[in-house]
Amino acid sequence: MSALPAPLCPPRRILMGPGPSDIAPRVLAALAGPTVGHLDPYFLKVMDEVQSMLRQVFSTSNELTMSVSGTGSAGMETCVVNLIEPGDRMLVCVNGVFGGRMADVAARCGAEVTRIERPYGEVFTPDEVATAIKQCQPKVVGIVHAETSTGACQPLEEISQIVHDAGALLLADCVTSLGGLPVEIDQWQVDAAYSGTQKCLSCPPGLSPVTFSKAAGDVIAARKTKIASWYFDTMLVRNYWGQSRAYHHTAPINMNYALHEALRATLEEGLPARFARHRKNHLALRAGIEAMGLGFVVAEPYRLPMLNAIRIPDGADDKAVRGKLLNDYGIEIGGGLGAMAGKVWRVGLMGETSTPRNVLVFLAALEACLPGKVPAGAGVAAANAYYGS
Amino acid sequence: MSALPAPLCPPRRILMGPGPSDIAPRVLAALAGPTVGHLDPYFLKVMDEVQSMLRQVFSTSNELTMSVSGTGSAGMETCVVNLIEPGDRMLVCVNGVFGGRMADVAARCGAEVTRIERPYGEVFTPDEVATAIKQCQPKVVGIVHAETSTGACQPLEEISQIVHDAGALLLADCVTSLGGLPVEIDQWQVDAAYSGTQKCLSCPPGLSPVTFSKAAGDVIAARKTKIASWYFDTMLVRNYWGQSRAYHHTAPINMNYALHEALRATLEEGLPARFARHRKNHLALRAGIEAMGLGFVVAEPYRLPMLNAIRIPDGADDKAVRGKLLNDYGIEIGGGLGAMAGKVWRVGLMGETSTPRNVLVFLAALEACLPGKVPAGAGVAAANAYYGS
Repeated sequence: MSALPAPLCPPRRILMGPGPSDIAPRVLAALAGPTVGHLDPYFLKVMDEVQSMLRQVFSTSNELTMSVSGTGSAGMETCVVNLIEPGDRMLVCVNGVFGGRMADVAARCGAEVTRIERPYGEVFTPDEVATAIKQCQPKVVGIVHAETSTGACQPLEEISQIVHDAGALLLADCVTSLGGLPVEIDQWQVDAAYSGTQKCLSCPPGLSPVTFSKAAGDVIAARKTKIASWYFDTMLVRNYWGQSRAYHHTAPINMNYALHEALRATLEEGLPARFARHRKNHLALRAGIEAMGLGFVVAEPYRLPMLNAIRIPDGADDKAVRGKLLNDYGIEIGGGLGAMAGKVWRVGLMGETSTPRNVLVFLAALEACLPGKVPAGAGVAAANAYYGS
Repeated sequence: MSALPAPLCPPRRILMGPGPSDIAPRVLAALAGPTVGHLDPYFLKVMDEVQSMLRQVFSTSNELTMSVSGTGSAGMETCVVNLIEPGDRMLVCVNGVFGGRMADVAARCGAEVTRIERPYGEVFTPDEVATAIKQCQPKVVGIVHAETSTGACQPLEEISQIVHDAGALLLADCVTSLGGLPVEIDQWQVDAAYSGTQKCLSCPPGLSPVTFSKAAGDVIAARKTKIASWYFDTMLVRNYWGQSRAYHHTAPINMNYALHEALRATLEEGLPARFARHRKNHLALRAGIEAMGLGFVVAEPYRLPMLNAIRIPDGADDKAVRGKLLNDYGIEIGGGLGAMAGKVWRVGLMGETSTPRNVLVFLAALEACLPGKVPAGAGVAAANAYYGS
């Protein structure tokens, strides 16, 4: 038998990558609460409250709103596998890694997938989507609200109108947007949406909030074929989360405690204040980044406040810089994914991470990692000037 | 906007149901450790150590051993969806709810499923399995090692020989057995197995340990069709857990911290000592239960030590007794599932829960819940006599 590993003693990072984000002490404390049984009346109350708070954060009255017992990609798979039957047509809008992933998931579920593409960092116009819908007549249109691989924010409201005029359902990836940007499920008439806990909700990864409109629920209930996944079958899971409380799987009890507290913190701050905070710290970061002579991947009107894709300057060593940030300063940022690998740094300002302190320390540390390549002190000065203004 | 729910303050239960089991303070403390990024070198080390300890607990050298980012049923689905292609034949042995679930999952994955059945509480003989294999010539044979719905322990070694002689793969549900009973993956030549963290490993629910033999890995690599699930695709997940560390999904960081500590605690105690402890407390419970005039569902040689299905005595009110145990004594036990609903209580002595203190308090409290129906003091006296012997 091998020697036993030492007890863990995880380092304290500042999590400024694409997620997980920093977790508040109150959320970690909730996570470590005493475990109760998953059919304990106490836990059923926790589930009810999580549902109710998720509805508030999603701005929806959808009954079928809950946390899937897996990470964000499990939420994606839950939405697709429930809505799609083999042979159904699905249009997927791909302008980054997560749109590509949705197309992959849809094909595995047996969908006849049509992809439309935009270069990484750009977004789709309503006209492009309308043209594609006319051509392929899809049952479901999938699109990414906040593309974590590029930092692009896709406006959804006009597209939703077009999707519904064509009699299709709209599925939106809100993994990175929920809790940091308005996600108006009812107002925008989004039929199915999924998120992750480890982004702007600042809860550890492990659960995926999802919500389905009544129209989506009706489509699921009218399926001719069994849902291909037992674990993600919302017809079963909704009985567990609903009033019958029928046993399905064993929910991750402590993760739901943590989500409960993260949602409480989110709503205590208030969504408008939280969105404004995300925007303010993004703009301070932007001021600093631009003063350092660096640039963003995404055009200004479509930039996500919580995920900043910054072009790596000529001559800078991607991995060396990220390594130095992590090892010397305990700051995690993300590298590029897919077509963006080696070309961008992804700097997250999500949830708890989105603070002036983090913006300043990141700009100061980044300067230290790019000696001679950026004007000394310019980044921090510009951010301070922004905050002071 | 609705009023904010109060902060959680979960009650301290003794978890003597079918899982989750009691969680050690050291595991809850690990769970609340500072979250790091899921590609942080520190977390990669955590994953390596979790893998290595899971191999020890599974008694295997299988490279493809890891924790699936979902609960036990997610592990079941991972095994089936990776091994089965549409049209493949699968034999599923059903003697309880979880065998039935496996058959359901297999059918959803497109398997041509043959079920053989035994009454709840009984186990399969090698001959029965051999006869069924001859008839249906399956690619995979699925069977439950420890049936959580009945408390029956299915011997696997002879059946494994028969399965392999027929050129098939053996898939075993070890959700409730792992960490409380010998699970000898290599010696028994089990090709795929899944478990849960919330049973005899005494870690909160949220992860599912799985392991695949080389033969199973070869079958997966030789598939003609894409794996129907992206989230559970081991060809992708193994690259994340393997040396290339390719990003797949975001692993539940803190849950893996907790599993790391739970595995450390398990191996620190030592598997043989842990198995002996489970057996000893089971036998003490049995002495008490029998002295109270109550009986077990499963015949003596096939009883699981960690899950005791006890027949509800005539005239006792199932729900009232369980409610009183929970509300007056903070003790959770489980009700019957499926065909056993209303007929049995399921008393778990799993992992941290398996202690003389819990055996005694349960017997004493059960007596209080069955006034006039059991001889006063007999249960506790018999258990004490057993311990004293």
